[in-house]
Amino acid sequence: MRDKYFFMHHALELARLTIGQTRPNPSVGAVVVKDGKVVGTGTHMKSGEPHAEVFALKQAGELAKDAEIYVTLEPCAHYGKTPPCAKAIIDAGIKKVYVATLDPNPKVAGGGVEWIRSEDIDVEAGILEQEAQDINKMFFHFMKTKRPYITLKTAVSLDGKMTANSGDSKWITSDQSRLDVHHNRHRHDAILVGSETVLRDDPLLTTRLPRGGMNPTRIVLDTHLSIPLEAKLLTNDDSNTIVVCGKEANTNKEKALNEISHVQVWRQNSDQIDLELLLGQMAEEKLMSLYVEGGSTIHSAFIQNQLFNEIHVYMAPKLIGGAMSKSFYNQLGFDEVKDSIQIEFDSVETIGQDLKIIAKPHEEEDS
Amino acid sequence: MRDKYFFMHHALELARLTIGQTRPNPSVGAVVVKDGKVVGTGTHMKSGEPHAEVFALKQAGELAKDAEIYVTLEPCAHYGKTPPCAKAIIDAGIKKVYVATLDPNPKVAGGGVEWIRSEDIDVEAGILEQEAQDINKMFFHFMKTKRPYITLKTAVSLDGKMTANSGDSKWITSDQSRLDVHHNRHRHDAILVGSETVLRDDPLLTTRLPRGGMNPTRIVLDTHLSIPLEAKLLTNDDSNTIVVCGKEANTNKEKALNEISHVQVWRQNSDQIDLELLLGQMAEEKLMSLYVEGGSTIHSAFIQNQLFNEIHVYMAPKLIGGAMSKSFYNQLGFDEVKDSIQIEFDSVETIGQDLKIIAKPHEEEDS
Repeated sequence: MRDKYFFMHHALELARLTIGQTRPNPSVGAVVVKDGKVVGTGTHMKSGEPHAEVFALKQAGELAKDAEIYVTLEPCAHYGKTPPCAKAIIDAGIKKVYVATLDPNPKVAGGGVEWIRSEDIDVEAGILEQEAQDINKMFFHFMKTKRPYITLKTAVSLDGKMTANSGDSKWITSDQSRLDVHHNRHRHDAILVGSETVLRDDPLLTTRLPRGGMNPTRIVLDTHLSIPLEAKLLTNDDSNTIVVCGKEANTNKEKALNEISHVQVWRQNSDQIDLELLLGQMAEEKLMSLYVEGGSTIHSAFIQNQLFNEIHVYMAPKLIGGAMSKSFYNQLGFDEVKDSIQIEFDSVETIGQDLKIIAKPHEEEDS
Repeated sequence: MRDKYFFMHHALELARLTIGQTRPNPSVGAVVVKDGKVVGTGTHMKSGEPHAEVFALKQAGELAKDAEIYVTLEPCAHYGKTPPCAKAIIDAGIKKVYVATLDPNPKVAGGGVEWIRSEDIDVEAGILEQEAQDINKMFFHFMKTKRPYITLKTAVSLDGKMTANSGDSKWITSDQSRLDVHHNRHRHDAILVGSETVLRDDPLLTTRLPRGGMNPTRIVLDTHLSIPLEAKLLTNDDSNTIVVCGKEANTNKEKALNEISHVQVWRQNSDQIDLELLLGQMAEEKLMSLYVEGGSTIHSAFIQNQLFNEIHVYMAPKLIGGAMSKSFYNQLGFDEVKDSIQIEFDSVETIGQDLKIIAKPHEEEDS
């Protein structure tokens, strides 16, 4: 059925194509339809470049007059890097506008729709709204809470171990699971590890996909600035690196790090790194999403403070065992099961020979 | 299509109905078909009672003459608690016999089929063979290996913990998962725990299902005979209890235990309990399947020795954390990931709010 859901569905598919690559902008798709036929399609491809509506209207040309447009996110009403899309829609002579979801920013939500309606153009909003919000879930979360959307990622054996007795962790999961991790790096603004991981594994933390991808900003929690200047995160400049330290960290080391062009030190005025403070600072820098590749120390801190929106557990068909081997939440914790943190399973999928389990914070049911 | 698969499928459904209740016999179903119409159905219901074929033939009566019979397991050829079914089929005047799978015991496999064929009755064997073997997988395993089929069962949080820091484990999983555990108790000949579990939780280890079920024989590994005479396993006689101890265990305690009518002590001539020895002794007692409800000490021993056919992990949407909390394979283990035990995921299902993950030993591919 070529009804409004049909065309909006395809506008959403256009948006999905670009998830990750439009950061810090959301992914948006648009379809222009005239007399039941598609006359223009568009997708926003990169921050600073035209929005989806502009591409679609341009493709439609003269045919946009008296046509319908399907847009996955409310057309913008402000002059930013590009002129407002609401104006472009009005100027093109569009007859009816279908919008999947309003802007997540409470301060501007409805502004684009109102402007268009003020020109006597019919607007229907809320078509496939939930799907549209899911596509930009991190952006929506950030706009509503002013805090990054946090995904904790770990790889474990069936018996819950992320390391063997010696601390060895290479490789618990399969190549396919590790590829999926790179997809997730592409989708997040920032990636975070602890200094222990840098000292032990010296990771690059870049996105390495067969067809390329966006690199997240690298963040290292390093209370005492203990990572060496030779660490790959510091010598490789494919992405920025932020090193977060406590107040006792060596100032000469801080200076040396700040001299590296792609590296910044964020010093906190406390002995221990305060995650809430860090997240606030990330928000100021418009880092809207964070992929945490802990370390059991790092994961334990995020979990104990309930600082997560998703947990991705890649589970391998292995049994590692051992009293010295570590689970991903291996510190702090609870004395009694009844006090433990409630979550919800969101999905389970098979990736190669592994399982990928996604969990989310437990949402209280409305009573 | 009312073809041979259609009728065998329904014979298999009849067999499935009784999984668990026919121990130590396998579950078997039979359907008699005359001129495309079902004229008799039967299922074996209890050890010592008639076999499936006998019920089905009796129901068919005179109509069995020149009819077809579908049987999920090769008809027996020996005089046991009941007369041989091969003879009953011949005597009834059956024209054609469809058999899903031959007898798993290599010494008798084919005997029933040969006897029937020797009377010029046509036999087709191997219809839905794999399904038929899966229904009686524990029986088949036992007949082929002379060792019990072993299922390890555990309940953990997403972070792989089966206890909180204090050792508390009540309750990690939901009521629905615990009900599923009782279904599995019904399906196994024996259930095994360690003395630690008895001392801490004092479990009954009986099958408690809304409509009842078979109780497994209870086995406690108790090297030093440390469990008290007041333990429910010893005072409740709904099922037998076997207490396994090492050579240093107190002989007075052994005597006191043996005086309880439903309790036996199996003393081993070594300091530590030898699992292989125990499994051999179980086999002599026709205990064909074992459900292990460890204890991380118990599970670690079974896993390290690769003594398992299935692992059932009930995973709850909780995060327990903690350095003192235990995973189910928390002892021994491996220094390097590459040396760990390879398994395979068999299935994942949702039970209430929990996940149930079933894993099996890794089968090498034929090259």
